[in-house]
Amino acid sequence: MRLVGVVGEDWPAEHTEFLRSRRIDTAGLRVVPGARTFRWRGKYQRNMNDRQTVDVQLNVMEQFDPVLPEDFRRCPFVFLANGSTEIQLKVLGQCLGANLIVADTMDLWIRTERQQLNELLRRIDGLVLNDSEAKLLTEDDNLVRAGHRVREMGPRFVVIKKGEHGAMFFSRHETYVLPAYPTARVVDPTGAGDSFAGGMMGYLAEQGNFEPRTLKEAMAYGILVASFTVEDFSLERLKNIERADLDRRMDEYRRMLTF
Amino acid sequence: MRLVGVVGEDWPAEHTEFLRSRRIDTAGLRVVPGARTFRWRGKYQRNMNDRQTVDVQLNVMEQFDPVLPEDFRRCPFVFLANGSTEIQLKVLGQCLGANLIVADTMDLWIRTERQQLNELLRRIDGLVLNDSEAKLLTEDDNLVRAGHRVREMGPRFVVIKKGEHGAMFFSRHETYVLPAYPTARVVDPTGAGDSFAGGMMGYLAEQGNFEPRTLKEAMAYGILVASFTVEDFSLERLKNIERADLDRRMDEYRRMLTF
Repeated sequence: MRLVGVVGEDWPAEHTEFLRSRRIDTAGLRVVPGARTFRWRGKYQRNMNDRQTVDVQLNVMEQFDPVLPEDFRRCPFVFLANGSTEIQLKVLGQCLGANLIVADTMDLWIRTERQQLNELLRRIDGLVLNDSEAKLLTEDDNLVRAGHRVREMGPRFVVIKKGEHGAMFFSRHETYVLPAYPTARVVDPTGAGDSFAGGMMGYLAEQGNFEPRTLKEAMAYGILVASFTVEDFSLERLKNIERADLDRRMDEYRRMLTF
Repeated sequence: MRLVGVVGEDWPAEHTEFLRSRRIDTAGLRVVPGARTFRWRGKYQRNMNDRQTVDVQLNVMEQFDPVLPEDFRRCPFVFLANGSTEIQLKVLGQCLGANLIVADTMDLWIRTERQQLNELLRRIDGLVLNDSEAKLLTEDDNLVRAGHRVREMGPRFVVIKKGEHGAMFFSRHETYVLPAYPTARVVDPTGAGDSFAGGMMGYLAEQGNFEPRTLKEAMAYGILVASFTVEDFSLERLKNIERADLDRRMDEYRRMLTF
């Protein structure tokens, strides 16, 4: 796993150490002296599903001009995490060996970088976004129609994340929804969407293909990784689990959906 | 299938005819001369999931004193549809041969008939209610905890309906969620919850048992009957489908949840 990103000098070195301990190549992580890391502050509703942004500071993200290390350019599975569409396009242009490119986006870019987003949509294989973003992008309140409309904008498949209600998948031949894993312990949903994408992409990269059935399994892994993330703050819960815990929950999840 | 209920003289006779054509015994349907049928008017949000009650007129329901025909009292599977808890208790008291009693309720009764509801909860086997009602009843915003808390109030199992997000099941040994069937055609969600309960109870009665696996299949049937109901106004869509259409959608639904 290779990471490309930018942080400020407020970034604790132990975070990088932790990523390395999980076999993540951090050669693409730039630390900008005299600058601060991107920050988001928000407020969750009592249902822990809806949230309001209180403050966003782009900081180092504002001037980030990603340059990929040579060996990163041959990565077969690329995930363009949520960030400005401009930056995503810059990374995309350097990924010459990619077999599968999936991107995330958010309301801010849908509103402010629509033209670049339209270009991005034509150049990626998959898009991951949440329900309200899908409605905003398509101006359609029916998620089934919205999912297919986003797909018609370019990507071969679209995933709509529904927070505590799971995730939907759309391709030309498939429409399905998988529920979230029902956890009684929701401490902090921040990062659940990113964990979903990480779990999904990690599984695809591990399997080395993106056949329909692998994509569905990857969706399930994404849902389960996210279900752990919300059980504590930050990465605390993920730090404390191993692959076996994830696979155990996967067995339970499969049983839950079998009748 | 046997129906107990009350309507006013505004009730069109063809509705009764339609019920009979579907092999529903309407001997328990009372038509009160000079009175009007229960009415509900509401407004759906653009998402077609959240709604506001604009007007409720209890009308004939207000004075309804249900007396079950003799052969109705031996019904093994009883569903106490949403109505005042007082009325539900009166029916319950007459169901002497019931093996399984399931009830529905709503916010109005949770707020105004709490004592009777507590009694009802101790006397039924299963309760079906929607997500906001479960939160109201337990004052817990986490649905997994809320489901189990309702269960601790009496019923052996609890079903929480989540509208377009499916339904959750809670028993002492099981917690699961099944997603809704993703339909692009949501015309009118009115009656989806009742259709869910009807599909679920109909399947249980057909199978003649309520083993855990039958209950899960019944949940799925409920979800699918509701998915047809929302595709048109009133009973229009249900009038136009047959059991084979339902079973076809069930095959698709099972495939959707298999990976």
